Amino acid sequence: MDAMMMGAMTDDMMSMEGMPAMDMAMMQACMDACAACEQACTVCSVQMMDGRMMDCAPACMNCADMCHTMMRTMLRMQGMTPAVMMSMLDACIAMCQMCMDECMAHADMSPVCKMCADACTACMDACSTMRDALAAA
Amino acid sequence: MDAMMMGAMTDDMMSMEGMPAMDMAMMQACMDACAACEQACTVCSVQMMDGRMMDCAPACMNCADMCHTMMRTMLRMQGMTPAVMMSMLDACIAMCQMCMDECMAHADMSPVCKMCADACTACMDACSTMRDALAAA
Amino acid sequence: MDAMMMGAMTDDMMSMEGMPAMDMAMMQACMDACAACEQACTVCSVQMMDGRMMDCAPACMNCADMCHTMMRTMLRMQGMTPAVMMSMLDACIAMCQMCMDECMAHADMSPVCKMCADACTACMDACSTMRDALAAA
Amino acid sequence: MDAMMMGAMTDDMMSMEGMPAMDMAMMQACMDACAACEQACTVCSVQMMDGRMMDCAPACMNCADMCHTMMRTMLRMQGMTPAVMMSMLDACIAMCQMCMDECMAHADMSPVCKMCADACTACMDACSTMRDALAAA
Repeated sequence: MDAMMMGAMTDDMMSMEGMPAMDMAMMQACMDACAACEQACTVCSVQMMDGRMMDCAPACMNCADMCHTMMRTMLRMQGMTPAVMMSMLDACIAMCQMCMDECMAHADMSPVCKMCADACTACMDACSTMRDALAAA
Repeated sequence: MDAMMMGAMTDDMMSMEGMPAMDMAMMQACMDACAACEQACTVCSVQMMDGRMMDCAPACMNCADMCHTMMRTMLRMQGMTPAVMMSMLDACIAMCQMCMDECMAHADMSPVCKMCADACTACMDACSTMRDALAAA
Repeated sequence: MDAMMMGAMTDDMMSMEGMPAMDMAMMQACMDACAACEQACTVCSVQMMDGRMMDCAPACMNCADMCHTMMRTMLRMQGMTPAVMMSMLDACIAMCQMCMDECMAHADMSPVCKMCADACTACMDACSTMRDALAAA
Repeated sequence: MDAMMMGAMTDDMMSMEGMPAMDMAMMQACMDACAACEQACTVCSVQMMDGRMMDCAPACMNCADMCHTMMRTMLRMQGMTPAVMMSMLDACIAMCQMCMDECMAHADMSPVCKMCADACTACMDACSTMRDALAAA
């Protein structure tokens, strides 16, 4: 996400009640982690092993959709409140946790599942950091 | 959603821990309410009044994306647990509540906002019913 | 899709160059077919047979995403031209055709694949009807 | 998109008829351009100017959805053929062109619209390069 876009978003954030304290670098890191997690989950959901799809695929698809929606709502903060954002972050964290658990179950057999689990972990961490900052504001 | 698809889904539900008690009619009603809410929010987000877009548009776009993701995860219950589902439902309810609040603020001026607020209310109700059923299981 | 929403959309259509001739019932049928196809493809993409995911899953996921995007752009005709709409319809038809071919390859073994192939066929037909109407306008 | 993910995708590409000639760096550039365009369009679709939403918003939302779907199908090449991919690329190019035209109409007044138009142009270029490569294969 480039500086121009972050600048445009910063102006919007400043006009939101309860949001001025947000660290834009934290926010950008969270959006990037969500985008990376969506991509990893999408690739993981269609990988083949020994000629068959993996059992983690449904969780990966669910996680991809939720991470995408999470990222989009952060790009549209005008249509959010801190309370709604925290609820969305909780759901995204829960979804990433579940996907990570599924993929870790066979991460030793599949490097793609390992990559997906790592992306889920990074996304959970970034969302948790944002959630804590919102709760503290 | 037709009977064939619900039948396919019912088989999957029966194999999920903590899910056997789910009423499939309740589930179907919830998915239909999410789909209807996504459509209403999408139409509301692009309506013009006196030659300009409405202020509720960002909330409507956020709500449309979340309702869509909510519906999709219900179509892929194999990749969910009851706990993750409850967290997702909480987020969807919070998002619908916010969109409804925004649209009700000018529902007397715009019949489209009134329609959108009604769809959000129906979606909140359906998600709450599902959440209660999961919590009781 | 209810009458209220179609009414709101009709007003928008009337103000679009090259669109006045559109039959709103045809448009509604196309959006409904896209929505139904997205749901069928999503269910098909996560079905298990003999304890494994099906090979058609990636095509089903691609088709679900395209049908969803197709439906959304029809709900936002203000941001479309007839030429762009025709190009989108061509892509949606091609995607549905491919998914139908994949699912028909094992439709005799899987009733879900049969349902998915039928939904793809219906979506292709509805999109083709809309495309023909736009080309004739 | 990191090297690990591209490696996983490369293996899949190699097993697709008509795809071996694809340059993975070109493919990665196209996915990155689609992802950047989706983000720029999403931010543009909710920007306010003089207290009101911009007229380009519906085109931006349509473009964001199509770029996202385009990116996802490139992450799931197992569920695509070269012919379907070309049709999708044509639609994505047409959608980006339209959004760019809308945003350029007031790019001198809005730096966000200028940023969005630039992202649309870059996405069109990347999709055209991919389309040409597929046509030549």
